[in-house]
Amino acid sequence: MAARIYLDWNATAPLREEARVAATGAFDLCGNPSSVHGEGRAARALVEEARGALAALVGAEPRNVFFTSGGTEANVMALSPHLTSAAEVRPRDRLLVSAIEHPSVLAGGRFPHQAVETVPVTVDGVLDLAALRRQLSALAQQDRRPLVSLMLANNETGVIQPVAEAAALAHAAGALMHVDAVQALGRISFDINALDADLVTVSGHKIGAPKGVGALIKRGQALHFADALIKGGGQERGARGGTENVAGIAGFGAAAAAVRTALAREGARMASLRTRLEAGLKARMPAAIVFGVAAARLPNTTLFAVPGIRAETAVIALDLDGIPVSSGAACSSGQVQPYQVLAAMGVAPALAQCAIRVSLGPTTTESEVDCFLDAWITLAEPLLKGRQGVAA
Amino acid sequence: MAARIYLDWNATAPLREEARVAATGAFDLCGNPSSVHGEGRAARALVEEARGALAALVGAEPRNVFFTSGGTEANVMALSPHLTSAAEVRPRDRLLVSAIEHPSVLAGGRFPHQAVETVPVTVDGVLDLAALRRQLSALAQQDRRPLVSLMLANNETGVIQPVAEAAALAHAAGALMHVDAVQALGRISFDINALDADLVTVSGHKIGAPKGVGALIKRGQALHFADALIKGGGQERGARGGTENVAGIAGFGAAAAAVRTALAREGARMASLRTRLEAGLKARMPAAIVFGVAAARLPNTTLFAVPGIRAETAVIALDLDGIPVSSGAACSSGQVQPYQVLAAMGVAPALAQCAIRVSLGPTTTESEVDCFLDAWITLAEPLLKGRQGVAA
Repeated sequence: MAARIYLDWNATAPLREEARVAATGAFDLCGNPSSVHGEGRAARALVEEARGALAALVGAEPRNVFFTSGGTEANVMALSPHLTSAAEVRPRDRLLVSAIEHPSVLAGGRFPHQAVETVPVTVDGVLDLAALRRQLSALAQQDRRPLVSLMLANNETGVIQPVAEAAALAHAAGALMHVDAVQALGRISFDINALDADLVTVSGHKIGAPKGVGALIKRGQALHFADALIKGGGQERGARGGTENVAGIAGFGAAAAAVRTALAREGARMASLRTRLEAGLKARMPAAIVFGVAAARLPNTTLFAVPGIRAETAVIALDLDGIPVSSGAACSSGQVQPYQVLAAMGVAPALAQCAIRVSLGPTTTESEVDCFLDAWITLAEPLLKGRQGVAA
Repeated sequence: MAARIYLDWNATAPLREEARVAATGAFDLCGNPSSVHGEGRAARALVEEARGALAALVGAEPRNVFFTSGGTEANVMALSPHLTSAAEVRPRDRLLVSAIEHPSVLAGGRFPHQAVETVPVTVDGVLDLAALRRQLSALAQQDRRPLVSLMLANNETGVIQPVAEAAALAHAAGALMHVDAVQALGRISFDINALDADLVTVSGHKIGAPKGVGALIKRGQALHFADALIKGGGQERGARGGTENVAGIAGFGAAAAAVRTALAREGARMASLRTRLEAGLKARMPAAIVFGVAAARLPNTTLFAVPGIRAETAVIALDLDGIPVSSGAACSSGQVQPYQVLAAMGVAPALAQCAIRVSLGPTTTESEVDCFLDAWITLAEPLLKGRQGVAA
């Protein structure tokens, strides 16, 4: 049997070797990080080492990193009316989210449904900054205290969002800024200070850590989680109770350290492969439409459609050919509104149903990209011909 | 260097070999369980196999098992006013918790602080059923709709609580019953139906699964989580969003399957070792007081004190001797009220400060118990003599 060609890295990345070593090493430590004895302190040391590695990757202070069970939990933890600083205790009463956020952000976290406003995106899949400015201005006139949540890069299109510009508008209007950087981490370099973000969500498994670990990262000390999502035994300095996922956290730290040294090289390599993929696709099938191509994108992601070839069919056929790809976000299968992202970009449902996401990783090769192209053409050409036959 | 003798199994258990094999095996699968392709389905299969194994251990249906990041999250998920069935949508408006619950339960989950009532325990550390009956009766007269939360076994004393009796009282009063069985799982056999519990919390790492995975288990289909704690991509049938901790869940399932076949044997073995420990302690140091000894207890747990020997000192000295034990719950170090459990049993603070918890596991040996006793006597006798010298 031929080796499988995994091209669904945005759904989840294979485990990095560094993460595997760290996580399985952690399995040998039996202590609870909250215990005062040697076994406990050894487990605690792993957690703190990982905290430092993750902090270094995003330019944060280790004490401002709070480990969670993943990006979703971190988003819900962040999106609370009770984010406060010492100077202000009045709750946040409006949440502004872009129309292309992850379902956990679109759901509004712990804000009541009626307090959540959506900010539109352009046809290129980029946040409409003018709309954000208008909405913030209207809220300021109503004496509202908003929190803005904008992803750093979209999980389906890969389009990179103008976070620093949005943060400047938010802060000028007295709003706080949360950034879901789950899909950006490990694909592009970023710094929490340069983003001007108050809070950043990251997830381990997108960068080759085990699934089931993430973090919410604060920029500064002043911000306080006055209403912990998971209250318990006081772990994570009271912000998140529960015995720590020590192996997952150790794996996350190791993956973060590996990414930090490899990112520039891996990013350039993935960008070159993505260019090869898109150029090959357009050359061999000119009807293909690549979404978000006019915007800055993650180097590893392409979302394209060939009118008439439904993604549902293509994903299954490619899987049978040994090439797992996706028709959208992994978590949205059947549960949330499909085509949310493309609909927000003004793409018609008939075309959105044809969208295929191919996402590459650091170990993807030229030959794998070429195999995908061959498989795609082999699959698509007969379908297109059949369709022309029907239309004729 | 002599091998360490780990006697803090209630804080966390060393990884079971079966769990290690399953978790590291899961590391080799790169799929996201929500993906429709082969890699996704393989990851999904691991999660569902684990769900079945855990369900079998507690007599539940697999579809009623919801994986979480641990016992704390499961407790907060359970303790919501918005637990509803099809027939009733009026929120629960009172939470009754025993005075010896885990901090995540004492904190009341998602109930407002003023809606939480504490139910006392006896001097033996057992829930006061008469008090529960009175409190439920008073709430019924106020037309309240309570949720009762009672642990199956206390983490510090090991005392087993009268859950079925409490559930009968709760149900007769129209209340729902939640049971935190984190410390009981794998130490005693129980069945969610025999307990008559509507919801049960369990945690993986107490039975030798990796840290960072737990579950909330429903008894029946009717109960609905109308207000998911972590809303996201629709995982766990909409009850708990976030990409699953596949390796942790696989490890939890493997540990549950192992426990199911080994529990009777391991329980009897631990009980015999605990008897040896307590008999040896009383024989060599008659001043020792064992807490909860008049009640039914987990077979692996002993909480004792020798007046005048402070736990803080003893835990550090024993750690230096290579024997990690605990002075209480692992998560309570510095964060929550100390001695909550013993205070609720009417133990004076001066004595509570001397309480040492020794908790055994399936791999604990007679010789380890004897080593502990020798170490304890060597440590304690000079301290007691010094104290008598001061008193004289």
